[in-house]
Formats: sequence, C-alpha cells, structure tokens
Amino acid sequence: MRKIIVLGLAFNMLTLLVQAQVLVSPDKNLSMKFELKEGVPYYQLTYKKKVVLKPGSLGIEVKDAPSFVDGFTLSDTKTATVDTSWNPVWGEQKTIRNHYNELTVTLTQKAQKDRFIRIRFRLFNDGLGFRYEFPMQDNLNYFIIKEEKTQFALSGDNKAFWLPGDYDTQEYSTVTSNLSEVRGKMKAAVTSNASQHTFSPTGVQTPLMMKSKDGLYINIHEAALVDYSSMSLDLDDKNFVLQAHLTPDAIGDKGNMQAPCQSPWRTILVSDRAGDILESKLILNLNEPTKYKDTSWIKPIKYVGVWWEMITGKSQWSYTDLPAVQLGVTDYSKVKPHGKHGANTKHVKEYIDFAALHHLDAVLVEGWNEGWEDWFGKSKDYVFDFVTPYPDFDVKELHRYAASKGIKIIMHHETSGSVRNYERHLDTAYQFMVDNGYNAVKSGYVGNILPRGEYHYGQWMNNHYLYAITKAAEYKIMVNAHEAVRPTGLSRTYPNLLANEAARGTEYESFGGNNADHTTILPFTRLIGGPMDYTPGIFETRVSAYNPTNKSFVHTTLARQLGLYVTMYSPLQMAADLPETYNKFLDAFKFIEDVAVDWDESKALEAEPGDYITIARKAKGTNNWFVGSTCDENGRMSNIDFKFLDKGKKYIATIYADAKDAHYETNPQAYTIRKVEVTSKSKLAQHCAPGGGYAISLIQKK
Amino acid sequence: MRKIIVLGLAFNMLTLLVQAQVLVSPDKNLSMKFELKEGVPYYQLTYKKKVVLKPGSLGIEVKDAPSFVDGFTLSDTKTATVDTSWNPVWGEQKTIRNHYNELTVTLTQKAQKDRFIRIRFRLFNDGLGFRYEFPMQDNLNYFIIKEEKTQFALSGDNKAFWLPGDYDTQEYSTVTSNLSEVRGKMKAAVTSNASQHTFSPTGVQTPLMMKSKDGLYINIHEAALVDYSSMSLDLDDKNFVLQAHLTPDAIGDKGNMQAPCQSPWRTILVSDRAGDILESKLILNLNEPTKYKDTSWIKPIKYVGVWWEMITGKSQWSYTDLPAVQLGVTDYSKVKPHGKHGANTKHVKEYIDFAALHHLDAVLVEGWNEGWEDWFGKSKDYVFDFVTPYPDFDVKELHRYAASKGIKIIMHHETSGSVRNYERHLDTAYQFMVDNGYNAVKSGYVGNILPRGEYHYGQWMNNHYLYAITKAAEYKIMVNAHEAVRPTGLSRTYPNLLANEAARGTEYESFGGNNADHTTILPFTRLIGGPMDYTPGIFETRVSAYNPTNKSFVHTTLARQLGLYVTMYSPLQMAADLPETYNKFLDAFKFIEDVAVDWDESKALEAEPGDYITIARKAKGTNNWFVGSTCDENGRMSNIDFKFLDKGKKYIATIYADAKDAHYETNPQAYTIRKVEVTSKSKLAQHCAPGGGYAISLIQKK
Repeated sequence: MRKIIVLGLAFNMLTLLVQAQVLVSPDKNLSMKFELKEGVPYYQLTYKKKVVLKPGSLGIEVKDAPSFVDGFTLSDTKTATVDTSWNPVWGEQKTIRNHYNELTVTLTQKAQKDRFIRIRFRLFNDGLGFRYEFPMQDNLNYFIIKEEKTQFALSGDNKAFWLPGDYDTQEYSTVTSNLSEVRGKMKAAVTSNASQHTFSPTGVQTPLMMKSKDGLYINIHEAALVDYSSMSLDLDDKNFVLQAHLTPDAIGDKGNMQAPCQSPWRTILVSDRAGDILESKLILNLNEPTKYKDTSWIKPIKYVGVWWEMITGKSQWSYTDLPAVQLGVTDYSKVKPHGKHGANTKHVKEYIDFAALHHLDAVLVEGWNEGWEDWFGKSKDYVFDFVTPYPDFDVKELHRYAASKGIKIIMHHETSGSVRNYERHLDTAYQFMVDNGYNAVKSGYVGNILPRGEYHYGQWMNNHYLYAITKAAEYKIMVNAHEAVRPTGLSRTYPNLLANEAARGTEYESFGGNNADHTTILPFTRLIGGPMDYTPGIFETRVSAYNPTNKSFVHTTLARQLGLYVTMYSPLQMAADLPETYNKFLDAFKFIEDVAVDWDESKALEAEPGDYITIARKAKGTNNWFVGSTCDENGRMSNIDFKFLDKGKKYIATIYADAKDAHYETNPQAYTIRKVEVTSKSKLAQHCAPGGGYAISLIQKK
Repeated sequence: MRKIIVLGLAFNMLTLLVQAQVLVSPDKNLSMKFELKEGVPYYQLTYKKKVVLKPGSLGIEVKDAPSFVDGFTLSDTKTATVDTSWNPVWGEQKTIRNHYNELTVTLTQKAQKDRFIRIRFRLFNDGLGFRYEFPMQDNLNYFIIKEEKTQFALSGDNKAFWLPGDYDTQEYSTVTSNLSEVRGKMKAAVTSNASQHTFSPTGVQTPLMMKSKDGLYINIHEAALVDYSSMSLDLDDKNFVLQAHLTPDAIGDKGNMQAPCQSPWRTILVSDRAGDILESKLILNLNEPTKYKDTSWIKPIKYVGVWWEMITGKSQWSYTDLPAVQLGVTDYSKVKPHGKHGANTKHVKEYIDFAALHHLDAVLVEGWNEGWEDWFGKSKDYVFDFVTPYPDFDVKELHRYAASKGIKIIMHHETSGSVRNYERHLDTAYQFMVDNGYNAVKSGYVGNILPRGEYHYGQWMNNHYLYAITKAAEYKIMVNAHEAVRPTGLSRTYPNLLANEAARGTEYESFGGNNADHTTILPFTRLIGGPMDYTPGIFETRVSAYNPTNKSFVHTTLARQLGLYVTMYSPLQMAADLPETYNKFLDAFKFIEDVAVDWDESKALEAEPGDYITIARKAKGTNNWFVGSTCDENGRMSNIDFKFLDKGKKYIATIYADAKDAHYETNPQAYTIRKVEVTSKSKLAQHCAPGGGYAISLIQKK
C-alpha cells in the first residue's frame, strides 16, 4: 500500500528575500534552518529544541576553476512531503515507511554567469539527509573536486565512538572518548594494518556515533555513495566542528565530476532514544529503489566455512611452501604440498555434511585456488586467476556432492588489491561460478590497491566495487565484499550486495582479540550503512586450542555468540567455528540452526552504545521471534518485556544464557539452556556475564 | 634452412680471476669489454678500434632493499655463438640472419647471502645488446626498482637527433644538435601536447640517433620491452654520459619485479655506414620468436580513410555540437546533428568505392561511434563503449557494402587514455569487430592516462598495450596502436602488432607543419624499433584548401610523398589524402596503387640522417623492385645504381620525381613521371627538390 502526499509549494519573491528557510520533520521534533549569510550557505539542526548542529557551512571547492563555496544568492526554493512505503528484497523489516519533508534550495552565483547548484534537504522523524546537486546547464560541465566543504558544527564536546580517519582501512578498534580526547588517543588507536593511510591527527571515519552531554544520540554518515569519493571527517577540536574530508586519488584530486551529477546524501541521525538509531531506515530510504527486474535469485544465506581454521593458523590457505609462484608457469603437480592445506576435497565434504545435517545453506571455501603462496604484501599484479583450483580441490566433484546434499559452495575471490587483474578476469570468474553451481561470492581487497596510488575508499575504487556488483547481477550472483568501502545503503538499489566487512570482525579475535564491548558499538557505527559479515558463532574461544602458538582468545562468552545472530543484523550469517567444536555443543548450536536470517519486524528492546544492546526480531513469514543481547566487560542484568508478541498467544521461549559464573576471559563456555512458556505479558530479568549476552527463540504454540 | 653452431665454453677458475672479459663480433669489428672494478660492473665498446662507449657502469637500484650496483664478484662466465636464420610473418626481408657472439656473466653479492644476477651480452656485426637477468633463487624474490643505473658513456660531444625525454609523449619535433647544446635547446623543443611530462633539462628519448666526430653512426634503444618500464636517457652534459632513466608509476616506483625476470635488452647499433643502421635487424633478433600457432590471418594493409578530412578540420569526428554527453543516457536521435560528421554511411561508401577501384585493402573510419562530442581533455572515465555507432553510421550496411567490394573497414578505438574503461569493454569491442567483418583496429591513447597518475610509458601501461595485443590475437585481430609506447621489436613475438605511431606523423603537418627533413630522420630514430603508421600520401599540401581557417601546409613535395612508401617501412600504409584530391592526380596515385607493403629484400642505397635517405625494396614473392628517396630542405642530386636488380634482366622503371622547379613551400605539386628501361648496370642521377624526393617502380620484363 503506497500513500503519497506531495505538496509542491513555490515560494513567492517575498519569501526569497527572507534568506532563511526552515524545515521541520513530520512529527516536528527536528527542525533544520538553512540560511545564506553573505553569500555563504549555512544549515543548523535542533531536536526537541536542543541544539544538534550549530550553523555549519556548505560548499564544494573546485580545482583550477571557481568553487561552489560563496557568492550565492537564493534563486529558488521548493518544498515537498513524501509518505510512502516499500518492501525490501531482504531486511530487518518487511515494509519500510519513507516519510519526510523536503526542502530544495537553488543557489546561483551571479559572478559565474549565473551558474547554479541545488542543495536538497530531507528531514525525517529520526534525522536529516542532504546532498549537493549539479544540474545540467551551459555554465557547468566537467569539474574536479578539490575538497568538499561541508561542516557538521557540533553543539559541544560530544562523547564519541570513533575510528581513526583512513583512506584504506576501517579495521581499527573503536575508541570511546570525548571528542576533545581524540588528538591524544590517536597514536595508540592507529594500530598496524596491511593497507592504511591516515590523514589527520584528528581525523575520524563515518559512521560516527556520538552522545551529546544533553543525552542526544547523534550519528553522522552518508547514503548512496555512487561515483564519488568516500567522506571522512576532520575534527576541529577547538570548536568541535567536523569538516568533510574526501578521499583523494593518486594525484590528489578528490572527485572527477560531469554535470548533471550529485554528491551522496550526508546523513545525521538524531534521537533521545538509542534504539531509534538502531531502528532508523533513513539511509535505506535515501537510496534509489532497485531497477533489477527479477530478484528471485537473491536469498539470505546461513553458512559454515573452511576459514576460521586458517585464520587461527590450524591450517593454511596455501598448498605448498614455495616462496613465490607464477600462475600458469608453476606446475603444482610437481611440487610437494606442505600437507596443511585446508581447502581439500575430503575436508570440504565434511563441512558440506555438517551444513546439510544442520539445515544450513552453504559452505564458504577459502584457499581453493592457485596463488596463495605469495598472495599477500607483494603488490603482485597477476596474483590470482580465480578459476584454477589447487590439485587437491576437485571443483566438479564438490559441486556434485554439494548439490546432492542441497548445499551451495560460496566462492572466494581474494583480489589482493590487484584490481585491474580482477576486472580482467571478472567475466571468466563469474561464468566459472555459474558453470560450477556457485551463486554467491565473498570478495576481498587485502593490501594496497593496484593501480598503485589509489586508495580503497577513493572514487576510482568505489566505481570498481559497484562494477563488480552490477556485473555479478548479470550472472545472478550475490556478493559479500570484504575490505571494500563501508556500505551506505546501496543494497536497496543493488540487493545482490548482501554484506560487507569494512570493520574489525571476528577474525581480529584471532589477531589479538577485540574489546569485550566491540559488539555493543558496531550496530551504532558500522552497521548503520548496511549489513556486516561479522562471522560470529565462535564456541571455542581459546585460539590455542587450534593453534598452540596463537595465544589470542575471543573476548566473548559462548552465549553472547548466539545473541549476535540477532543483534548483528545481516542477511548473510556464518557459523564461523569448526564443526568438530560445534559437535561438542550441539544443544547450543541448535539456536544457530533455528535462528532466521530474514525478518518481518525488528525492535530494539534495550540499547546504550558501548554498554549493551538487546534486539527482538520476527522471522520472515512466521509468527516466531528471536531475541539477542550483548553487553560489555562489566556484565549486567538485562530487563526486557515481550510486548512485541501477539496478544493472547503462547510461545515456547528457549533461552540460551550465560551461567552465573560465566566470564569472557575465565569461563566463557559456561552456559545454560532453559525452556519457558511466555506471552506478551511476560517479563524477563536475565543475567549477562562480563563480555556476555543471551539468545532466545520464541516459537508460537499452535 | 637453419644452421646453428653453438659453442659453449666454460671458463676455468684461472680465467675467473681475470675480471675483464672481452667479447668480439663475428666479423671482429666490434669489441666489448666487460670488467668489474671494485665490485662495480663496467662495459665499454669499440668499433674498428674507435671508441664507441667508454667504460660505463651497470646496475639496478632497488627500493627499500639492497641494490644491484656494487659488491659484486664474477662467479661465472659463459660464452656462445649463434648463427641461425628465421622468416618473419611480414617485414623488410624474407629471411633474417641472427648471428652473434654471446657472453653471460654471473655476478654474485657475497654480502647479500650470495645473491646473484646475470648480464647477458650479445655482440652482432652491427651492434651490441645486453640485458639484466634475475634468476630464481632463495635470496631473490620480489623487488621494486628505484632506478636502473645503466650508463652509456659516450666518446664525446656527439651530434645527436633527439627528442625531449618525456613520460607521456614522443610527438616532439626532432632537434638536431650536438649533445652539448641539448640543455640550451630544451625549452624550445618542449612544445605543448595533450599529455606530456618531461623529467630533466637534459633528458632525451630513445631511439637516440647520433653521429660521432670520427664518423661513427650510433643508435641507442631497447628491445623486447615486456613487463618493464620504458627507458629514457638523462644526459650528463659535462662528461657526455647518458644515464638510463625509467618511467615511474603513480607513486614514483620504477618497476615491480618478481624473479625470475629480466630487463629488456639495451641496444647500441654501430657502423661507419649510415645504411647499416637502417638495415639492422638486431632489435628484431633480440626478440622472442612468435608462439602464435597460426599467423595466416595477419596480412599487411594498404588503406585510405575518413581521417585527414577531420585532422584538417574539413569535417568533424563528432555528430552534434553538444558540449558533453553521457553514453547510454544522451539520446542522439533527439539531437540535431551539426551536419559536418565525416563518418556517415554515404561518405564511407565513397571511400570504399575508391579503395575498390584502386585495389587497396581497407578503409579506416574515425568518428563512427557515440562519444566524440567531449572525448578530449576532460579526463572522462566512461568516454566510449566502442560498439554504439552514431545514427548516421550503419554498421551492418557498411559491412555488407564493403564485403561486396572486397574491402575491409578498419575499426577505430580511441580510448582517450581511459584505459580501465577500454579494458572493461575490450572483449565486447573485439567480438563486435568479428561480428561485423573488421579484422584490424587503430587504437589511440590521446590525453593523460586513467588511472590518474600513471604515464603512457610506465610498466603499468606497457602491460596494458601488450594485453590489448594478445587479446586481439585471440580474435584474429591486427592492431595499429597510436600514442602507445614506441616499439621495441615486439612484432616478432606478436606479429598482429602491425604498427604504432609514437612520433610526429603526418597529422602534425596540419598542426603547424613538420620540418622538411623530418622523414630523413625518422627511419634513424623512431623506426629503429618497429614500423610507424606515418600515413603519407598527401597530394594537396595546403591545408587551407580543405579548411580555409587552417594555414598549415605539409612540408613536402608531392613526389616525396610517393617516395615515403618505400623509405618509411610499414606493413600498414595509408594513402592519407582525400579521394577527391587523388582523382586529380591519378597518374601519380598509380605509384601508391602499385607499391608493395611487404618485402623480400631491402637495401639502403644512400643515407645520411637529417639529409637524405634512398631505399630499394623487392616486393614479396615477385621480381619487382621499388625505390624511394627523401631529402631535406636543401634539395640535392641523388646518385644511385641498380646493382640490386637481377643480372641480365630488363625492368621498366617508372620514375615519379620532382619537377626542376618544384619546392615544398612554393611549388609542391610540380612532378614528372617518366618510364625508362633499366638493367642492373644502369645508374641514375635524379634531381630532388627542397623537401622533395622520388619514387620508382621497377617491373621486370618477361
């Protein structure tokens, strides 16, 4: 059901003389004021009369030509209201309401032969989005962006959950601090990475989550990042103004543009309720509907994989110990394998058997193809061909075996950042997938980008990621892109983009460990733009159990791992541990088997960034619900009700929780499972261990 | 018939203690001495006891790791002699003799765990070639070249024919001067270009042609440029030492290498006879034989084209006057054409008719496809799709029409330097060619390269050019690449690479004019590495005759244009002028109709770089010969004999020559045609006008 009310009002000349324009949200809680002061555009934002953003300037600096920063007059304004709804192909909600008030200002530069741009503002009940538009006109054609001059003038020294601003990686541990402390904490925050490039002692990334001193939850990000450079934020820590900072190309330019064109939407989510931030659909609503005519081939996936055993060091991606190889020259049949190659036919069949037994969908296999001996850190151009398996990985036999069990194998395309090489092989690689029964691929961009000088988050690479996704759609292939740009809601337009990584995931638990509160932050930061392939489900938290030389441990209780399947939304969910471990905890694993990956409804029951999150979701097409909770290193008592259940119905709740004495460090595997009958009137007070949580399946009784 | 004598001699330990190694050419005229002095490798060269190169050092500087420049001991030497012959798929000779003495030195760096490299020297009768080799070994794997440290230590202030060293263009006018004058003449020499990047006030390009004070002709270039950066030369004009200077990538590195690998051959041609330089096959001999199993689809081409009319400005590549377009969005059927689009169906048919009437092979058509409105200077990424014609160019109809007349259309792929875009479309573009009867493509790389920061002659782009050529071979397509790297003999290995531009061609006559002696230099410089698509055959030298606003004129007589078909060797030869002009001079055009494009024998009858060149060639598979001559702005009397003709046979010589009063500036179209019977005993004294020359066809009488 679509209900659209569009009010188009053309302001008369008197109004244009008033250079300030006010836009309010449908519920009137948010108010945005746009203003030209001495030819410079400013905007400001309040929520329930509290200042969210003080006046901040807008504009685009142009290279070798007049900029779009000043000399403006307001030549036109238009307003509209939109109230529609739409159904995503997959998601947290069956139906999403798109309800906003819009203001579009046309700004003309008389001194540039009446060259004009537009800024479009959309004010939702839970936030603001705005973008720059460069319409086709005689006086505007090609231009190069030197820097975007958007300001976010914060009300004060907000508490922030931030990552160091970087052109190449988001794999830093989130720092929780006041903005005034960013400068002092930056050095320690910039831990080493295969590919990284910071740009400022006070630079931070988006999504940026904040909490103001007067209790407002504020999140800054962008939506619909297409044919543009990714935005980071440079903090002026005297005045607490965040300046947009785009990612440069190899020669220092920040965007090659051809009118008509537009910037992505800059988004500011605001609420006095933390759960509103988690539940916001603003970013999806700002993205274009999909043009894919057929989306029936796009389906959420629950999977296991030959992966964690390599991450921990139990086995290897590579087949031999050769120091280097040359594809098409090195004859692997003549080389003695080291015997620790994880992706071999027999072993993959074990995973297929496990997946089939437990009603999962797929098995990811990394390390199946020639080239892993020297894939990393060599800036190697022709590093993989994406079609040639190692001698012990039988493509056709595994396709046959998996298909006979109703299981898919997930393809793996590690590009090593060698992107020209990947594009050269892309059609062949996708066709190979189609020919051999694969319909989903995990791609990776580990290491510095080739062409050298480009960054992971520049316009050049953003163009590539989308190219890989749209080409995949031609082959009806779903994509899970790691080390790619963090998402900005593009899955609405390109629903075969199931997930990204673009943050520290579970793998970092094996590289030294994530903070115990990591998963109480990520949904407020990384997940705001789109799903993350977080790959939870680790039941054996001591990595040394798999690889005695690796002393890392996963900073979690087992019960919290189950909760993550609900709190970390993704249409692509991995049960990341090894089958041999799951077989020791099949009662707990039952939750993973049962939990849905696609939802009709989602609600945040409790939430405080950095402390705890409890989410409830209704499994798509059913009357069943699932609840998950995660907390920080302090542990807590979670108090929830079940008002979201159908009234007058009974449900069997199976509660997977931390034992009384569980602790993520000392006693992670102590969990309890109990079944209780609940109704919409029930309440629950549930103990959560330090670094713990819980999971509940709620199956409606007939 | 192949005759191979290989003598492998292993030197004993006593010899190794003698650190100097001497290599002589088969005829003993050339002598190369290799020596280690304090761990640094040096080489020097003499010809008939005259110094060609004084001792110059060798080595490779490595980034962030120990270099290959010193600390060497000579750990092994090997010598060999090779005397074979081979037949090229097309060329100036039916059979090419490959005869050299070889010395390979193994140099070990004890301080680097006995890491070793090899330098292989091949000494032919007409010059030296050497290259660095990096064999597979435990202590050598991936390395980045910071700079190649090869020196060419000249004997003195040689006269040189030089172009400013540049990472992006060779389209400069050759400067003739002593090396000591390079610095002073550089500024004026660096004329403006769509894409250029000089690197030194005394940097020059290769092929570099020189003449020493003691009368030696010396040429420095490289052979087999594969997976490496192009070499320029930086002149130390105090000591007259040329230092190798490689082309950097976007971040300043000069080569990403993985052992086993090698550098290209550095080549020094030497003779006291200028014609030997022109006749040398050294560079081809240093290239690998072709691996193509079937080469029957590769055939030399004589063609006309819808091209000169656009170069002169008589018509346009574009279809409309739109300031910018978006492929797939701009609807050309709704836009009013400007009416000056050259590549329209009717007009192309006129060229096809002309080609068929005069027994040519093909018609090149530029401007046939959507996108020409804003193709240039915009750094546009998605600039062409290579498959969508303008509304007035009927692909299928023209294919049918051309085929019915036995004519091919030559495809045109202007990339505008947007190379990722070209590679994305390459398979589709080549398949489109196959589907529509095209078997040859002229490609272009006008403007700065995308990915931005890369240069036309860097390793990245050299990789691309070869990728386009080898992929073309999969589709049985021949390639004529303009603005690409200058050739280095790769046509032996990849014989579908018919020609390149990589120098100022005839088009520059319309951009202000070339020097009158330009074509007396190019065969000594540009053509040393491979054929040039020079596109001669201009009969109407006043460009204003086509476009009254363009006052340029072609610095040539008409007769000299005919001579160029012989003096400017290429398997791809254009009759560049307009059919309507040729129709006024059909008697002269007869030479172009008759001249061959493939040869069994070639001889330089007279030659002095910068002054004159006269060449005789025997048409492949016939008993007929063709002679061509070109001279500088002074004019001259050419004196040749016909000893190359079969003894005792008679030939009808048709001599196309300058009239007595012809002059490239004032009276270019004054020519004479006379027929004479000649034998091998005949002689000819032929007047050549300033900027003039002549052409002779010699048809053996039955």
